Amino acid sequence: MKSINPDDFKVVHAIELSKMPTLLAVDNDEEEDKLDKVREKLSKLQDVMYAHNRYGVLICLQGMDTSGKDSLIREVFKEFNSRGVVVHSFKTPNSTELEHDYLWRHYLALPEKGKFAVFNRTHYENVLVTRVHPEYILNENLPGIEDVSAITDTFWENRMEQIRNFEKHITQNGTIVLKFFLHLSKEEQRERLLRRLEEQKQNWKFSIGDLKERELWTDYMHYYEEAINNTSTAYAPWYVVPADDKEMCRYIVGKIIWEEMQKHTDIQEPEMDEKIRENIELYKEILTKE
Amino acid sequence: MKSINPDDFKVVHAIELSKMPTLLAVDNDEEEDKLDKVREKLSKLQDVMYAHNRYGVLICLQGMDTSGKDSLIREVFKEFNSRGVVVHSFKTPNSTELEHDYLWRHYLALPEKGKFAVFNRTHYENVLVTRVHPEYILNENLPGIEDVSAITDTFWENRMEQIRNFEKHITQNGTIVLKFFLHLSKEEQRERLLRRLEEQKQNWKFSIGDLKERELWTDYMHYYEEAINNTSTAYAPWYVVPADDKEMCRYIVGKIIWEEMQKHTDIQEPEMDEKIRENIELYKEILTKE
Repeated sequence: MKSINPDDFKVVHAIELSKMPTLLAVDNDEEEDKLDKVREKLSKLQDVMYAHNRYGVLICLQGMDTSGKDSLIREVFKEFNSRGVVVHSFKTPNSTELEHDYLWRHYLALPEKGKFAVFNRTHYENVLVTRVHPEYILNENLPGIEDVSAITDTFWENRMEQIRNFEKHITQNGTIVLKFFLHLSKEEQRERLLRRLEEQKQNWKFSIGDLKERELWTDYMHYYEEAINNTSTAYAPWYVVPADDKEMCRYIVGKIIWEEMQKHTDIQEPEMDEKIRENIELYKEILTKE
Repeated sequence: MKSINPDDFKVVHAIELSKMPTLLAVDNDEEEDKLDKVREKLSKLQDVMYAHNRYGVLICLQGMDTSGKDSLIREVFKEFNSRGVVVHSFKTPNSTELEHDYLWRHYLALPEKGKFAVFNRTHYENVLVTRVHPEYILNENLPGIEDVSAITDTFWENRMEQIRNFEKHITQNGTIVLKFFLHLSKEEQRERLLRRLEEQKQNWKFSIGDLKERELWTDYMHYYEEAINNTSTAYAPWYVVPADDKEMCRYIVGKIIWEEMQKHTDIQEPEMDEKIRENIELYKEILTKE
């Protein structure tokens, strides 16, 4: 198999999800092996990034239920020093979060300098699940939005712009943003949901809600497409990654993160302060004679 | 004196601070009286806003040392229920704050729905004190900014855009933003600093830094002008308020807040739920017979 090129997955022009693969037709026996190498390299890079202390990295993961977000996080960041990566799983906003604008809880969770933050589901749910279920917007208590009929096209266009501007701001201030849509086929979801019912150890993962959301698959694909097309930018690109094969998907995501980070050639361990270097023999002597 | 019209102070076209008054030539014996009435009205409005629970209000206060920001806060919000107003005095960013982008600590402090937040010094310090002292930017550890020579005009233009977009986002999501520059004359600052040295009770307020910053007065005025002209928008306007007379200044700020809030005619106590209203007699009976 030819090596993974991030550009093959990056959304540069408007895409149609139905025309994009959910599975790569390649022999992937070596994927686990390859992932091993990528995650080792990533963990070393993370240490350098921590020492360099100028960039943060925000990894955004979106995908339908069972698309493999959780296990991807477990596998791709396996070799990281826990100090350097924080995972935030965003669920239904709580009452404190609803007292603020919808980006507030995400803003709080942005990575510190030198660190990775992984958003497992992200601020994009505000233009995804809320479009499929516009009544959720009413929980935000927005002025002028007393019922769903007040939620216009302009409302959604404004949200897309707000998200673009938010990401522009954080990237201009040193956060590297990489966004992944785990592209799963409806048939593969069916298999995975069935497995949750059949295998006792997986039973807890199944919820009736999963089936209800599955019925809205076409709507979700439509709004995913719209969100991705409206917010894939040079500074914060979307990658659509085939997700029917979990090992392959993890490897591609890991590889893309690694390749994209290579573009930031300035990420280096800081050099020793000149004043220290000048007196390095002196310090050595002090310690030796102690 | 004719009544205060917010539009007389609002920055709509580019302004020159040197041509704007620091004192209004009017008889102001009644200002304390008038302020009394305004703050009572504001406190009632705040209660309604709290019940309505759709808007937050962000009051931004900027001004040179001794321009009267602290005492203005004390006086204008005197009648507020403490539940409904939170004051944030932003000082030099601490080490946790510096791990994030410069807007992060301000984002955290944004008002909850139904409440006022007052920023005593604001996110604008990031295009004011940092312009006069660009070396402060180095504390932010931004990629590519290793020394002050890397801080270009584009850097500042980006910051202005970032701030405009930030304010656009929060206003579109229900935060009302009102920004006040307390316009003090250099001569009046001299008087006030002298008083801090002469009156024992005020001694603690004086710092040597005040004199150093005073020497940079012209620079500050230049950058204030630029910041105000670049960020006074229809959604988040700046008001330049004469500040040489403290009572007058407080009254004008209070009056502007009041007048601007009147434009939001939708701020009303919510009506009783229809289901409750239908059964109102029943509930009365239950309570009466108890």
